[in-house]
Amino acid sequence: MLKSVNLLRLNHGQEVLGELTNYCREKGISSAIILGIIGSLERVKFGTAPKDGKWGWDFDEYEGHLSILSGQGSLSVHEGEMIFHIHMCLIDPEKPGESIGGHLEEGIVWATVEIYIGELSYQLERIIDPESGLSALRTT
Amino acid sequence: MLKSVNLLRLNHGQEVLGELTNYCREKGISSAIILGIIGSLERVKFGTAPKDGKWGWDFDEYEGHLSILSGQGSLSVHEGEMIFHIHMCLIDPEKPGESIGGHLEEGIVWATVEIYIGELSYQLERIIDPESGLSALRTT
Amino acid sequence: MLKSVNLLRLNHGQEVLGELTNYCREKGISSAIILGIIGSLERVKFGTAPKDGKWGWDFDEYEGHLSILSGQGSLSVHEGEMIFHIHMCLIDPEKPGESIGGHLEEGIVWATVEIYIGELSYQLERIIDPESGLSALRTT
Repeated sequence: MLKSVNLLRLNHGQEVLGELTNYCREKGISSAIILGIIGSLERVKFGTAPKDGKWGWDFDEYEGHLSILSGQGSLSVHEGEMIFHIHMCLIDPEKPGESIGGHLEEGIVWATVEIYIGELSYQLERIIDPESGLSALRTT
Repeated sequence: MLKSVNLLRLNHGQEVLGELTNYCREKGISSAIILGIIGSLERVKFGTAPKDGKWGWDFDEYEGHLSILSGQGSLSVHEGEMIFHIHMCLIDPEKPGESIGGHLEEGIVWATVEIYIGELSYQLERIIDPESGLSALRTT
Repeated sequence: MLKSVNLLRLNHGQEVLGELTNYCREKGISSAIILGIIGSLERVKFGTAPKDGKWGWDFDEYEGHLSILSGQGSLSVHEGEMIFHIHMCLIDPEKPGESIGGHLEEGIVWATVEIYIGELSYQLERIIDPESGLSALRTT
């Protein structure tokens, strides 16, 4: 179940994942789902599958006055470390019809960002999946 | 925490923000997060950062049989007024690969729209941020 | 209100809607909102409004290493049958700026998928809307 619902608001120049980590550590939150993220970023770095179609991990970076259309994901722990796994969809108002997105690696706030955090009453944990080698959430 | 979870369903021709306001007023809901919006719109107006890259506010309008892929945001109050701050992502089935989105200013329902509203047990309020001049959510 | 919040994690090759149905049946969940879906699909089939602009239903299919940016929707029942109504937004990392989406008809997991399910304390039901002939959620 949800244990609490928290709102984090960020201001110009702050980095989303670093501030989320600080906020959750201060509040004692180690297990959560992200119920929503809206606002705008001036710079974002996404992790994605590689462009050559192979297995692995690649990066896309964008700058602009990027509107955050959605954010979903979770906070779990793996070997004592807090892991935010968040996917975002953004759009550059100068390029309507060209929305972008992926696994959030870094995001610098432009005007403001609002994050709705649903703390869970049980601990989400990541385990290494023996088949894929991926860090995967343990199912409930 | 969440105080209640409510479902609002809209029909052809209704306007999303007006109906959300009516529904929440009738139910006595003044503080909430939007847990999801799906359905379709035949007309939508977004507020966005200006296309010239400057500070300010501009508008994009679209018509079609637009599928709502997601909606996130909040209901707060500012000087006694209910403020819905909602970002949406939509796609026109006639233009796959060209999704659109932004801050919802107006949305007219095409077939149907479902909105999931998570009422909060505490009051979200907007304050004017002294640095940016923006109306910003007070952090919890 | 929410009755429980559950996490379903899927692995390579599993089909999203079939696994969601199995999971909810085993857990005794018949009424829920989808609080988030992230991960990746290698194949997806969307239902959409027809490309000719007429009333009806058409399909779009995509393959690739598709990153799921968001998923929203609900689980309800109609004449004893479980109905998942889910809209998803995805992006193909090989085609940045070209996100896709619609009503999920089928999705085959690529690396992994995480689904956050908010079970409701009341039963969501679909009814046939007499005007549109559509199956629509009964409002709360």
